[in-house]
This record gives sequence, structure tokens and C-alpha cells, in this order.
Amino acid sequence: MTFSAAPLRLSTAAADFETAFKARLHWSADADAAIEQRVAEILADVQKRGDAAVIEYTKRFDRLDVADMTALELTVEELRAAFESLPAVQREALEAAARRVRSYHEAQKKASGESWQYRDEDGTLLGQKVTPLDRVGIYVPGGKAAYPSSVLMNAIPAHVAGVGEIIMVVPTPGGEKNPLVLAAAHVAGVSRAFTIGGAQAVAALAYGTATVPAVDKVTGPGNAYVAAAKRRVFGTVGIDMIAGPSEILVLADGSTPPDWVAMDLFSQAEHDELAQSILLCPDAAYIDRVQQEIDRLLPTMPRAEIIAASLNGRGALIHTRDMEEACAISNRIAPEHLEVSSADPHRWEPLLKHAGAIFLGAYTSESLGDYCAGPNHVLPTSGTARFSSPLGVYDFQKRSSLIEVSEQGAQTLGRIAVTLAEGEGLPAHAEAARMRLK
Amino acid sequence: MTFSAAPLRLSTAAADFETAFKARLHWSADADAAIEQRVAEILADVQKRGDAAVIEYTKRFDRLDVADMTALELTVEELRAAFESLPAVQREALEAAARRVRSYHEAQKKASGESWQYRDEDGTLLGQKVTPLDRVGIYVPGGKAAYPSSVLMNAIPAHVAGVGEIIMVVPTPGGEKNPLVLAAAHVAGVSRAFTIGGAQAVAALAYGTATVPAVDKVTGPGNAYVAAAKRRVFGTVGIDMIAGPSEILVLADGSTPPDWVAMDLFSQAEHDELAQSILLCPDAAYIDRVQQEIDRLLPTMPRAEIIAASLNGRGALIHTRDMEEACAISNRIAPEHLEVSSADPHRWEPLLKHAGAIFLGAYTSESLGDYCAGPNHVLPTSGTARFSSPLGVYDFQKRSSLIEVSEQGAQTLGRIAVTLAEGEGLPAHAEAARMRLK
Repeated sequence: MTFSAAPLRLSTAAADFETAFKARLHWSADADAAIEQRVAEILADVQKRGDAAVIEYTKRFDRLDVADMTALELTVEELRAAFESLPAVQREALEAAARRVRSYHEAQKKASGESWQYRDEDGTLLGQKVTPLDRVGIYVPGGKAAYPSSVLMNAIPAHVAGVGEIIMVVPTPGGEKNPLVLAAAHVAGVSRAFTIGGAQAVAALAYGTATVPAVDKVTGPGNAYVAAAKRRVFGTVGIDMIAGPSEILVLADGSTPPDWVAMDLFSQAEHDELAQSILLCPDAAYIDRVQQEIDRLLPTMPRAEIIAASLNGRGALIHTRDMEEACAISNRIAPEHLEVSSADPHRWEPLLKHAGAIFLGAYTSESLGDYCAGPNHVLPTSGTARFSSPLGVYDFQKRSSLIEVSEQGAQTLGRIAVTLAEGEGLPAHAEAARMRLK
Repeated sequence: MTFSAAPLRLSTAAADFETAFKARLHWSADADAAIEQRVAEILADVQKRGDAAVIEYTKRFDRLDVADMTALELTVEELRAAFESLPAVQREALEAAARRVRSYHEAQKKASGESWQYRDEDGTLLGQKVTPLDRVGIYVPGGKAAYPSSVLMNAIPAHVAGVGEIIMVVPTPGGEKNPLVLAAAHVAGVSRAFTIGGAQAVAALAYGTATVPAVDKVTGPGNAYVAAAKRRVFGTVGIDMIAGPSEILVLADGSTPPDWVAMDLFSQAEHDELAQSILLCPDAAYIDRVQQEIDRLLPTMPRAEIIAASLNGRGALIHTRDMEEACAISNRIAPEHLEVSSADPHRWEPLLKHAGAIFLGAYTSESLGDYCAGPNHVLPTSGTARFSSPLGVYDFQKRSSLIEVSEQGAQTLGRIAVTLAEGEGLPAHAEAARMRLK
């Protein structure tokens, strides 16, 4: 079986560009009423019956029949044993990736995650105290798409933030455990781990059971059931984003070997049929060369079928008037991954306003960022980079304002507060301020 | 009509404390299926028909009959005129409050909202670029509970973050405009303002209409329709929190005049019947004195009926063994507002892990913080301070990771990425890294 991939060719100079561009970008997560209903039932059941419900659903959905929850817990010894059983090259790769991810997130914490305070001229203290969450839950998908790198990317920022306990859940359908996932949990410093998944695992984390401790936030990717469950428990616990299909946008000035760009487009497309790979380039001949490389390289790819489906269904090669226009279009898309494949990436970077992660220069393939450059690979999708950020240390911290009004400060502030509280019709607010006046 | 208020008396030493304590804390926002359905219809209609739908709903719900959308826009001149029409004392109070709120949020931006980057030993650049949102929408409730202070607290952090355009919506039922709200919009630097409200206003902001520009994030409080609409548009745009009833928790060591504490409890209770005021104190005699002040002061309060309903229905005066236990209970509650009404507040502050805002010392009444101390008054409610933070400059910024791998860095990182990508069964990821190896 051979596959061919011809991403849609568009030109910003064409009259129908806007329509075709918008149609290609369009994606929406259809809420599935049946899934919603099922998830609501599972959440309610786990909230009510706890461990017994979790054991039942795990038997039904993961074909794992256990007598009690202890059989669904992975001990830290098992995690370490999984790590030790790996070939040295994998152990070293995991450790090297973890070291870099940790070091980047430590820099992030230092740059934006520390408490601060100051005193104003009245001696009033103002500030913000930054503290870690007590306990978080990390959902790790099981089965075929089991990504140990996601374990690192979720657990390490939590660890750097100072979270007290990190609880991992990972379904093991049919009892099959992925040693790389378990090893990554060991490397990342996961505190406890359970082989449970689906909505029942999210419910166990959000509400707690006799065995699974209730957490303050649940992060990590999952299927439609997991996403629906996370949406529903939001408020009881915090959640990270609900991710859509993965995307890459390559801004190319024509200076990068075209096979590198083709492979970068593939590396997004191979995730799944709905993934989106887009090239923006002012050089039509270069776009042709990238297409030729796509044709040449696709037959060599083990996941050619998925790549072809993704590129044909959602990919685009867009010819722009110039790099400035390419940057402007990129800002409209607000991509999850943005490669600036240019000989002079720092010329364009300041023009790029919205993106999850920006990869500068030909050597910075997205895959280096996915695994080991250091920054997080959990990024906002579907244009949400307009208003949201990569997963980071800040997602595992929260802030409390600190205010200590001095006696003198209460005189100045009190008069302002009295006036405004009366204007709002809140007399007890006014009186509380007035009582502190001399 | 006279009212009396006797908040529930509890003691941590009592056998039934846990049960009674949990019952008193319990609050859950019941999702109202009828509201959900109605809101879904309004959102779909505004998305489809734009301005025409907004005009229709505004006529129906706010009794405002206009021919076109221009009649529903407030010009910046109207906002300024509203400000200039105020008595000098109100103008000065608004400006003084705005100044302090701005200055605090500038400190916040400096402490945690600036871009950063570094190069590692291979010359690879890593960092994070912090940028403002392009355009945000601020929902301001109209009618009776119109709070100009909320305009300041939402718009000023957006302004400090560098948001390009701040769009305010405020319903004006029957055409009645609140001059303090309009004046606050002028002081806070709102870009455009529309006299629309409800789910239709949230829809207009999220989807955009011919007249109302689509925004990237919607913040601000509102009624059940507004809350349901915000939940539904989340993903299309960002939203701030969905707030529950307001809460205060006072930790008292008995050194603060008991009438001050009583009034602080009132100032939360006067918001609405569901607001929650709790006192934690190791001194039973002091609790008695606070109750006496409640009895003495309640009849003097214009909003005595609401205060009484709130304190009787949801308030609590809790006798603890010591201050340490009081701090531990406070951490379990994770209150929105936490007053440490102690002669030595800095002794207890380090023990307090979860709270939206911490008010230190007897002079720091919550009402000073509500209006003009500087920190934001939009705070996490219902225990969500366990995992979320006050509204801040960070809510109007987003981060993009920056990665520039050097040629040399690509050699080190490439080998790690190849190993991990192969372990995950993602060969194009591996190949993209391999191509960059020399």
C-alpha cells in the first residue's frame, strides 16, 4: 500500500484565499451527548461508591480484574525496577531529558514564580505569596499512544513548583504496563501511581476514594472520556487545558534544506489524522521543493498512512507575498508549535505575537523541543495561544495577595474606601473602614 | 422590622465538630438545566445573527428598544462626561483607588510578568516571551449591584499588561446608566463600552458581531446566565474564574476590638444571603464579645436583613484549641478573604497556605482591600484558592516558549530525541532530529 500527500496549496494573492484559509483552519470539538451522559454517571458513581466503583470500571473497560485497590497501585519500587530494566541508552536519554526539563523549569520558577512584597510610603505592606499546590494528579494515557515524555512534562514542573504529592494514573488495558512510562515516573519523582484510567480515574483524583487521595488539580492529556471528565470536575479541582489536535506551523524563508521542513511537517502529521501541518513561505519554488521532498520521503515513513491522511485532510502549503505577511498570518492562526525556519529568525521573532512555542532557526526542529530542549511540550492548541500559555511551574502554584495596612495607611485608605463603599451602597464596608479612622 | 443574627457556634473540641463543620461549609452551584438551555440558544443565535440578535435580546431583557447598535455604544466622551459630573470627593476617591491598584499591578508585572531567556553551555537559547492579549472583554453587572470598583479591578490589570483594546459591556436595564460605573471605565482606560448584558453580551464578545469586536478573553462577574455563558464560550475565548458566593474568614487572637471584627463579618454578609462569614478564635470569651457586638450593631445596618440571612444561614463562630489549629482549619477552608486579626500577624502568616487574599493585622479590614489597598478584589471562592489565584496582570498576558537550538546543541539533543521518539513509536520525530545530526 502506498500513500501520497498533497497538502492544499494556497496563495494569499488568490481571490478566494480568505474563504479557503478559514475552511482549512476550521476545527471544532463536537460535544458527544452520549459520552457526556456516560461520564456524568461514572463521576457520580465514583463519588458515591469510591474504590468499589473504580475497581468495577477498571474491570469493565481495562479488562483488569482485581480484588482490591492495592492491586491497582504501582509501588515506587516497581517504578524504579522498570527504570532499571531499560537499556542504558534509554535510561540515559530519559535522565538527560529530565535534567534539561528540570533546569528550564527551575529558571521559569526563578523568573516568574517567587513571592514578592514591598511597603508603600505609609508603611503599608503589599505583595503576593506564591505557594505550591498540595497535591496534583497526572493523567497519563495508556495503550498504544503511551508517551513517557508526557510524564516528564507534567510531573517535573509540579515537582519544581514544590507540590507535596504527585499522583499518577495510567490505564494498563489487559494489564500491559509500558516500562518507559513507569521509568519516566521514577525519573520525574512521581509520589504514587495507580493503573487506572478513563473518567473513573479522573473522578478518583477529583473526589478521592479510600485509597486514591483527592488532589487539587488534574493535568495531562486523554481521550474524549477523560476530556469530558476533566471539564466536569473543573471547579472541584483545577485542570490544565483541554487539548485539541496538535499543530505545527513552519514559517520558511527558503534557507532550510527542504527535506528538513518536510520531515518537520511529517512529525506533526504522524500524531493523528486530525493533526495540522502548515507551511507559510514567500518563495513558490521552495514550496515546490518541499512538496517534492514530501513525495520522496513519505514512502519511507512507517506511519505514512496517518501522515497522508493528516496532510491531505488538514495540511496546507501557503504562498505569501513576503515574510511579514507570513508572520501576520501566523498571528491569526496562533499555532501550538511555530518553527521560524529562517536564516535570520531574530528578525521575525518580534513580529510573532501568538504561539505556544517558537522554534528559532533551522536546527530547532519541533521534535527537539518535544523531548529534551527543556521547555514544556504541553502547549495551547486550536488558536488558544491567543490567550493561554504552555504548561509550566505557574500551573502548579497559586498566589495569595498579602496586605498589611499600617495604622497611618488606614487613615488615607479608609477615607477612599468610605466614599466608594457608600457609592456602591455597601454601608457595612464603609463602616468597617470608618471604624479604623482615628 | 428587626433582625437578629446568631452565626452557628462550633467548637473543635466537640465530638460532632467534623460533621457540623462540613455541613456548614457545603455549597454547590446547582446547574440549572433551564438556564443552560436558554443560554445555549442565545449564544447560537448571536453567533448566527450578530447585532440583530443582540438588539432583540436587549429589548426583551433590558427593555431598551434601539434601531441599531450605535445606540448601544457608549462613547469615550460619555464616559468622561460621567466622570466629570461626579462630586469632587467621588472623583478623587476613584482616581486615588485607581492609582493604587495600578501601582500594585505594575509591581506584579515587574515581579512575575516579564520575558526572560538564557543560553545553555551549547549556545542553545531557551526562554519565555510574555505578551499581552490583543483584546479583552470586561463584563460589568448593571442594575442594583453595580460596582465601579469591579471596573477598576478588571480593567486596570488588563491595561497594565498592555492589552490593546479593553471592551466593557454593562447592561442598563430600562436605560438607566450608573454614572460611577461609567466614570470608573473612564478612569481605568476602557477602550470601548456597550450597554448590553446577559448571555447575549458574552456571546457578542466571544464571537464578535458587525459592531462588537471579538475578544480573546472575557472576565468579570455576572448572574447565573452570564456564568453559564462564560462556561460555554470557554475555549473559543479565555475566561477568568466562575465565582461562587463571597466569603470571609477571620482568624482572631482576641486583640482586635470586637466591634471591628463584627463589622468585618457584616461587610461580607451584606453582599448577599449566600455569602459566608466565619470567625476562628481560641478565646471563647472573645467570641462571646463578638456576638454581643453583632447583636448591638446589626440594628444599625441598612442591609440588616441580608446580613442576618447570611450569618444565620451560613455564618459560623468557631472556637479552636489554639491559633495553630485555627490556621490549620483556615487551610482546609481556603477562604477567598482571610483576615489575620492578630497582634502578631507575621507569626501566623507562614502557616497559612491557601487563601485568595490575606489581610494582616487589625487595621487591614477587608473593605480597604476591596477598594483601594492595591491588590485585586477578584479572588478565588469556594475553596478554589487551593489551586487558583487572584485576578492579575498574568491573566491578561500569555507566554510563548522560545527555543533556538545551536548546531552544536542539535548534536547532543538530537541523540536524546531519537532514542525517546523511537521508544514512543514516532519515527518522523526521530528522523527530524536525525537529519540535523552531522
